Amino acid sequence: RTKAAMVTLLRRNPEIQPLLAILQVKRQKDTCRINYFDICKELLKLNNDPKVHGVYLHLPAASLTSRVLGALNPEKDVDGTTDLNMGRLVRGDASEGFVPPVAGAVLDLLGKHDAPLKVKSVLLVGGEGPLRLALQCLIERSGVEVNTSHWNSKSLQTQVHLHLFSNLTVKESNVIHSCNRWIQNQQYRPWRLRSLKLLPLTPVPSDIEISRAQTPKPVDQLAEEIGLLPEELEAYGRNKAKVQLSLLDRLHSQPDGNYVLVAGITPTPLGEGKSTVTIGLVQALSAHLKLNSFACLRQPSQGPTFGVKGGAAGGGYAQVIPMEEFNLHLTGDIHAITAANNLVAAAIDARMLHEATQSDKALFNRLVPTVNGVRTFSPIQISRLRRLGISKTEPTSLTPQEVSAFVRLDLDPSKITWQRVLDTNDRFLRKITVGQASTEKGQIRETGFDIAVASEIMAILALSDSLKDMKDRLAHMVVGTSRSGGPVTAEDLGVSGAVAVLMKDAIKPTLMQTLEGTPVFVHAGPFANIAHGNSSVLADKLALKLVGRDGFVVTEAGFGADIGMEKFFNIKCRASGLRPNVVVLVATVRALKMHGGGPNVSAGAPLPREYINENLSLVAGGCHSNLKKQIQIAHLFGVPVVVALNVFKTDTRAEIDLVCQIAKTCGASDAVPCHHWSQGGRGCLELAQAVKEATRRPSNFQFLYPTEMPIVEKIRTIAQKVYGANDMELSPEAKSKIDYYNQQGYGSLPICMAKTHLSLSHMADKKGAPTGFILPIRDIRASVGAGFIYPLVGTMSTMPGLPTRPCFYDIDLDPDTEEITGLF
Amino acid sequence: RTKAAMVTLLRRNPEIQPLLAILQVKRQKDTCRINYFDICKELLKLNNDPKVHGVYLHLPAASLTSRVLGALNPEKDVDGTTDLNMGRLVRGDASEGFVPPVAGAVLDLLGKHDAPLKVKSVLLVGGEGPLRLALQCLIERSGVEVNTSHWNSKSLQTQVHLHLFSNLTVKESNVIHSCNRWIQNQQYRPWRLRSLKLLPLTPVPSDIEISRAQTPKPVDQLAEEIGLLPEELEAYGRNKAKVQLSLLDRLHSQPDGNYVLVAGITPTPLGEGKSTVTIGLVQALSAHLKLNSFACLRQPSQGPTFGVKGGAAGGGYAQVIPMEEFNLHLTGDIHAITAANNLVAAAIDARMLHEATQSDKALFNRLVPTVNGVRTFSPIQISRLRRLGISKTEPTSLTPQEVSAFVRLDLDPSKITWQRVLDTNDRFLRKITVGQASTEKGQIRETGFDIAVASEIMAILALSDSLKDMKDRLAHMVVGTSRSGGPVTAEDLGVSGAVAVLMKDAIKPTLMQTLEGTPVFVHAGPFANIAHGNSSVLADKLALKLVGRDGFVVTEAGFGADIGMEKFFNIKCRASGLRPNVVVLVATVRALKMHGGGPNVSAGAPLPREYINENLSLVAGGCHSNLKKQIQIAHLFGVPVVVALNVFKTDTRAEIDLVCQIAKTCGASDAVPCHHWSQGGRGCLELAQAVKEATRRPSNFQFLYPTEMPIVEKIRTIAQKVYGANDMELSPEAKSKIDYYNQQGYGSLPICMAKTHLSLSHMADKKGAPTGFILPIRDIRASVGAGFIYPLVGTMSTMPGLPTRPCFYDIDLDPDTEEITGLF
Repeated sequence: RTKAAMVTLLRRNPEIQPLLAILQVKRQKDTCRINYFDICKELLKLNNDPKVHGVYLHLPAASLTSRVLGALNPEKDVDGTTDLNMGRLVRGDASEGFVPPVAGAVLDLLGKHDAPLKVKSVLLVGGEGPLRLALQCLIERSGVEVNTSHWNSKSLQTQVHLHLFSNLTVKESNVIHSCNRWIQNQQYRPWRLRSLKLLPLTPVPSDIEISRAQTPKPVDQLAEEIGLLPEELEAYGRNKAKVQLSLLDRLHSQPDGNYVLVAGITPTPLGEGKSTVTIGLVQALSAHLKLNSFACLRQPSQGPTFGVKGGAAGGGYAQVIPMEEFNLHLTGDIHAITAANNLVAAAIDARMLHEATQSDKALFNRLVPTVNGVRTFSPIQISRLRRLGISKTEPTSLTPQEVSAFVRLDLDPSKITWQRVLDTNDRFLRKITVGQASTEKGQIRETGFDIAVASEIMAILALSDSLKDMKDRLAHMVVGTSRSGGPVTAEDLGVSGAVAVLMKDAIKPTLMQTLEGTPVFVHAGPFANIAHGNSSVLADKLALKLVGRDGFVVTEAGFGADIGMEKFFNIKCRASGLRPNVVVLVATVRALKMHGGGPNVSAGAPLPREYINENLSLVAGGCHSNLKKQIQIAHLFGVPVVVALNVFKTDTRAEIDLVCQIAKTCGASDAVPCHHWSQGGRGCLELAQAVKEATRRPSNFQFLYPTEMPIVEKIRTIAQKVYGANDMELSPEAKSKIDYYNQQGYGSLPICMAKTHLSLSHMADKKGAPTGFILPIRDIRASVGAGFIYPLVGTMSTMPGLPTRPCFYDIDLDPDTEEITGLF
Repeated sequence: RTKAAMVTLLRRNPEIQPLLAILQVKRQKDTCRINYFDICKELLKLNNDPKVHGVYLHLPAASLTSRVLGALNPEKDVDGTTDLNMGRLVRGDASEGFVPPVAGAVLDLLGKHDAPLKVKSVLLVGGEGPLRLALQCLIERSGVEVNTSHWNSKSLQTQVHLHLFSNLTVKESNVIHSCNRWIQNQQYRPWRLRSLKLLPLTPVPSDIEISRAQTPKPVDQLAEEIGLLPEELEAYGRNKAKVQLSLLDRLHSQPDGNYVLVAGITPTPLGEGKSTVTIGLVQALSAHLKLNSFACLRQPSQGPTFGVKGGAAGGGYAQVIPMEEFNLHLTGDIHAITAANNLVAAAIDARMLHEATQSDKALFNRLVPTVNGVRTFSPIQISRLRRLGISKTEPTSLTPQEVSAFVRLDLDPSKITWQRVLDTNDRFLRKITVGQASTEKGQIRETGFDIAVASEIMAILALSDSLKDMKDRLAHMVVGTSRSGGPVTAEDLGVSGAVAVLMKDAIKPTLMQTLEGTPVFVHAGPFANIAHGNSSVLADKLALKLVGRDGFVVTEAGFGADIGMEKFFNIKCRASGLRPNVVVLVATVRALKMHGGGPNVSAGAPLPREYINENLSLVAGGCHSNLKKQIQIAHLFGVPVVVALNVFKTDTRAEIDLVCQIAKTCGASDAVPCHHWSQGGRGCLELAQAVKEATRRPSNFQFLYPTEMPIVEKIRTIAQKVYGANDMELSPEAKSKIDYYNQQGYGSLPICMAKTHLSLSHMADKKGAPTGFILPIRDIRASVGAGFIYPLVGTMSTMPGLPTRPCFYDIDLDPDTEEITGLF
């Protein structure tokens, strides 16, 4: 309520310029295109109009020519307020933003006048935001009815609106009052979440049947319940919406909630249910314990949905709904990644072709063409010149050597690391030869497609903390090496701006809900081996603000804790600056029996009887090996662990009790059974209580290694401390790559191990907690834009295939009801 | 208001089942999955509850086992209405829909009881639609306050809701009143369009600057203005929304508006502005003449947006806004096509691999696996068996020969016609070799990628008139030929149901608006040579209902009238059953001069001076050749023509007058200059008046050929009558293809010529109206799902490339304002 608060408010929020007369031209790159002559004419007209009592002028500095300045009569003022020159000229500079000068002028006005300003008529001209606010103030105190449909101009360029109100009295206090109300609207709002009732059936129906039986709340209702403003939401149909990142500014001073990571023990090939635990846990916290909570999930690739895996929206009574929208298209983020990734790929091959078939001069003439007699570098070309150490900006001033350096990326075809991607399980694209049409003049080369979620752009989406950060990372992506050995980036190709444009909406997390009507963010889903396998930093950050200080954000890391959790801590938390309070470690009796020495478990084959009948010694074996080791790994990072035993119907009471008991003796803060699959949130209440309890414990988070540690040492640290290896061993190729990366200045990037998830070691068949092995590093690669180095331990397939009878055989659409069948 | 109207109403609208008690299980394919035991238990509970006074049961016929029937007490009835058995069992059959039986029961109830029904308590169970309506009736007459958040059940499968209201009196008249109100809500609503003001600047700024300077109306506001119901809209952000096809049912009896096709003369390589004329015309009709009008446009490929062409949302002051959303991603339809097309491609190669490496028995065991001891064919497999002439449904009863025929598609790798697609200009994918990884066991083959809009699925999207129609067409797509010569379809691959699922949202047209706030549908954008180059049938149909009898729908056909318009009439109108009233033929002085003998015009090179200075003889030459011929082509179909001269600033008064004068002597109903690019709708007023006038003329539409005509004759008819050829000539390959297609039963499909758009002939450099040539047919292909045969005249590139300096060099994103620069 003080003037100081007003200053902060006005400085921070360009929308608040609610006073009297603001004539504004929106900032834009190319100011010389604005027709200033028309502005002048308009100004003269306004100045000569006896009904207009003042003009606030708000233009980029570059536009304030003497002609524009001359058009305004400095004597013009507001009736009855002789000492206030309403014709005051406010100079705004495009480079510094418009807000401070206008805010300053408003404060001047507020400060100088104790008496109410009498204004007979008011001119309002400006962008939509300020207009709406100004209008609101005026309506409030004048009672004049205004047709808001007139308020549709975004800038002066095309339209000038003149609105006259008679007999207005503008009081300073009204303005302050109005601003205060606005501030209140912007503040954190407590949740008023209405959960959806769940009446679980026995036996549990199929996932899609359960999903369809529940009608989700309209997403705008959900958004309102959790305190989002309508303007922060972009609906995509009725059940999902993108949330704008401006939320982070609005709730800037709001404390974060508790941050909970769900990780797992080393899984069987069937998966042990981390996603269902994540969803069950938030259903329990929000719908049953009435604690604000948010689940942050990865968006699954569409490929496996039609292949063998099926959907990834949870399962049973712990699901995100509608599950078919979660699993198919969603809000198009992965499609955007596919488009962006492949635009870079097309740019690479096309550029190599053009360089191979044109002289330096021809290339230069085409890359920097004369348009209307003028020849200029585009901003992205200036960036390349800077990197080449050329500070010139005049195209004609480049020497032939400089021209050659500029036009030739000189990519080495055998050293292009950028692959194309598709969100389809298309194994025949793993290795292909491109350029075989005669139009490509024999420039053939071998390359391949990855599944879209393996694109570096996906990893970048998951790690960016703002649009600017994402744009920078995209520009730095290294696509290959020049013949002279230098890295070639997306920015060198001139394509990174366009890539950022394609990704502009994808950066906003998508809001959905669980079966019990509690909120979920779905955002990003990078591979968990060649990338870090975690959902986005931005979704976590938005959710932490929304739940408030006492709330919970539950986020999931891919694969076992040795992989997903380690990368969550060392890569994601490093990028985000966030610190987790608790790790939930998901285990199943099935996986524990396997680690305790049970026979092989494989997809498609029936489960051996050891897994169906009670077998306490196998369970104990698994607990004392893999579970214990995974708990210890979490403790390396100083974070308390709650073990969540995902109960199957074949598990016996004795088995369940044994797991919980041993887990606690191995250092877990608590260990509880979970029944979310068959019961929803109610089946996860014990876990919710245990997590709530554990957040009260001190968490002394620390990274496993400092980034300055040499690459070799960072790898060794992970191999020994996390995997339990004696040491690691570099192939000659890996060694030379490390030298190269050090030389290129990538030595201080964190490490993202590409290792099998089926064992703590590199050998998928070694269960339990193997020791005494040497971890072999076959090769090392870098995702420079995403910001990590990834050593390859073994061969990672980055393009799945289709089995003889893919899931799609059962997937169908009823053309009358529009219902989907066969998704699971 | 009569009972007859009620009958119609209830028959048509499944949502109206607003009476008392309806217990409904949603129809579904796999009825055996419903847990009937639970339904029985629920029924017994209801029957024994003294507070429940009646049950309407609404189940698929298959579910009415004696156990279910027995659970209901036939004596149970409603207090005070002894002759009404509320326990009456209504049998619904999934195959006939649920509506008639329930509607009948409701009518019974209405007919039998003059006295008000006294109901102490009411059970409401059912789908969301009926519940909402029933609830509304009840609230209205009872005054009971009901918390609608309880009404969240979609079906009985998982939940049964029991809601009790005391002391209700249900009056028949109330029900009728309520239904009448509902009917009124469903009826056609006159438009209340508020146009956006446009104040054009001189010189005309860039397209993106103009687009950004105008704030679009919120799309839900636009939708309300043009009479859409909120439930018919699915917003995608603030500026675009998908419109549900149920609108066609709701406005079934509403007469269609006038149907206007915009076509063009043979263009220069720079394009002559058909899209801007289309948009300018609707801006003039709606915003200035206050006549309801809709533009139906194609969605452009994203590839060329980053290549050479730039955007396709119109230009200058005739644009769809926001133009960046129009040009990028839109609502994801093309991404859905990419995903669907490539799933088919992956299925083809994976299937060939599996067939090559497995015995019949192994294939059969995998394709028809034993699940929980049971072995069944999926519905899509039953379809394949039927096509093979096998009527068995029991997997174990197939003979080894039948098993072999069933499991082996036996695709001939050299005769696969299905290509992969990407929405990227990636020339290096034109011809590639796939399957080179060792995992594919040497099954390499040559294939290629097309641009996504060249996919047959895009052509299908554009021609389908319902979800069912689309699904059927997708199933019939031929992907290649078996070694024995038979066609192999997407359904044979088992993938067509999944493809329909991927396309389920894409089938709904996207609503956007012009710069003047008038409505636009953007939907589908098939290639104009290998496909028919027109926007969707569904968008046109929806728009024709929405504009109402006196309104106008303006739709655009790709390329010159000889291609786009001919295909619009012979293919699109045949599929839709719609008949156009007027053709608007777009011409430019530039193109006319070229046809009159002016020098070459090519992209990138400066225009020769003939095109900048007045030259009446070149103009006259073009009018008397190409323009005249294109008018005659439209007259072949019996439709009146208005010539729209898209005026450039270099055109002189004399040139403009000359074109208009000659056009009228050549048979045009009218010919007028258009200034929409610089003035918006106001610049197109003359055209709007001329079009309005022309719709009053009789249109005697007729097809150019009957489909039963032999393929050869159909091609000859187009070559001679439309192109002006003496005759056509078939290559041996084309001849044998025709024999093959006749033999396969595709002989009566319409013809879709793949010809250059730069000349009426097959020779791009022959301008004007060439005669005396023989049209060579190099090859013939078929899009069986889309439903046409396409003869190839010359080589068509279906994958564009990137130039040395693609558009993307200028495209950038301001990370602070989120504004895009450099799109044009």
